Amino acid sequence: MIPHTGNVFVISAPSGTGKSTLTSRLVKNMEGLIFSISTTTRQAREGEVEGKDYFFVDHDAFDRTVAEGGFLEWVEVYGNRYGTGRDWILGMLAKGVDVLLDIETQGALNVQERMPDAIMIFLLPPSAKELERRLRSRGKDSEEQIELRLNYARHELEHFPQYDHLIVNDDLEEAYRQLESVVLAARSRRCRMEATARRLLSEF
Amino acid sequence: MIPHTGNVFVISAPSGTGKSTLTSRLVKNMEGLIFSISTTTRQAREGEVEGKDYFFVDHDAFDRTVAEGGFLEWVEVYGNRYGTGRDWILGMLAKGVDVLLDIETQGALNVQERMPDAIMIFLLPPSAKELERRLRSRGKDSEEQIELRLNYARHELEHFPQYDHLIVNDDLEEAYRQLESVVLAARSRRCRMEATARRLLSEF
Repeated sequence: MIPHTGNVFVISAPSGTGKSTLTSRLVKNMEGLIFSISTTTRQAREGEVEGKDYFFVDHDAFDRTVAEGGFLEWVEVYGNRYGTGRDWILGMLAKGVDVLLDIETQGALNVQERMPDAIMIFLLPPSAKELERRLRSRGKDSEEQIELRLNYARHELEHFPQYDHLIVNDDLEEAYRQLESVVLAARSRRCRMEATARRLLSEF
Repeated sequence: MIPHTGNVFVISAPSGTGKSTLTSRLVKNMEGLIFSISTTTRQAREGEVEGKDYFFVDHDAFDRTVAEGGFLEWVEVYGNRYGTGRDWILGMLAKGVDVLLDIETQGALNVQERMPDAIMIFLLPPSAKELERRLRSRGKDSEEQIELRLNYARHELEHFPQYDHLIVNDDLEEAYRQLESVVLAARSRRCRMEATARRLLSEF
């Protein structure tokens, strides 16, 4: 089979929806799908590996890449910046590797503008009550933080119309199966199979 | 969960590609997916059941439905006519049932024009040689018929650009998995999940 170019998947979800569980399993199980590696100005933490966890750069290098339009999206969090490098992703896609970007709704919108071919996936909690229950049961957040997270969840959910697929994480197995199908189905899209079809046609 | 409306899937493939094997298994295994039932002027054969295998009608009734624009597509084969009734399909979709239409490329194009939301799937043989080998090994056709089938396969393959998904049936299990994902992925499309997302949003 002639190698097709890879697909970009963007996944967003309110905190507590189960995104990390689902995406880690997905990348582990599916051949030819990897997480995007972000570039950051943050200091590497104990055990973090350059080019595996992040690409670590200083603020000047980050600024230059921003100025060159080299990021598909970037954000600043607590004084540290995180960006998705365009060239690295394009390199993976050219090799036929699918790349999964786990980003919040604003970053997702930026990626979509620059890569209209990207498959946009939004993970939904089954209900507001259940999301609240999950956030509480983690025991990580104060009452105030839970309030903030729920408010932010609402803000993020308002962006659902910009996504191609909406998957409810009620039953984890079912949500996983749906997520996996979106990735598999994207691989048989005509735009990805065009070369194969043309080659086949030329044999007749 | 609020019931969503169903999806229409149209599948086409050159004769010998394995479409019947794959679609029968798909409809058997997947809940909420049924084959479209055609309306025909052909006489019912021994064992065929009205409303299960076909809707049997006379030529006048068929003509009236054609005149009313009641068919999404119809064809004439050896003096018998076969059509896909619009109202029956719309009734199923309203109940949230997904409907699979197994039709050739011209009919597929007609359905797509009337239902732009339909998911168009084209099944490809791995190679022209392999298709020829499969046709021969069935032992059903004369040399001349095999020539005709291969010519017609070429004609059908030329229509691939009108399809959303192209699935190569090289390994049956893999092709089945891809086909199944296209159906599952269609169910999480935003247009199908919009009501669920709006209801969720209203809870916050």
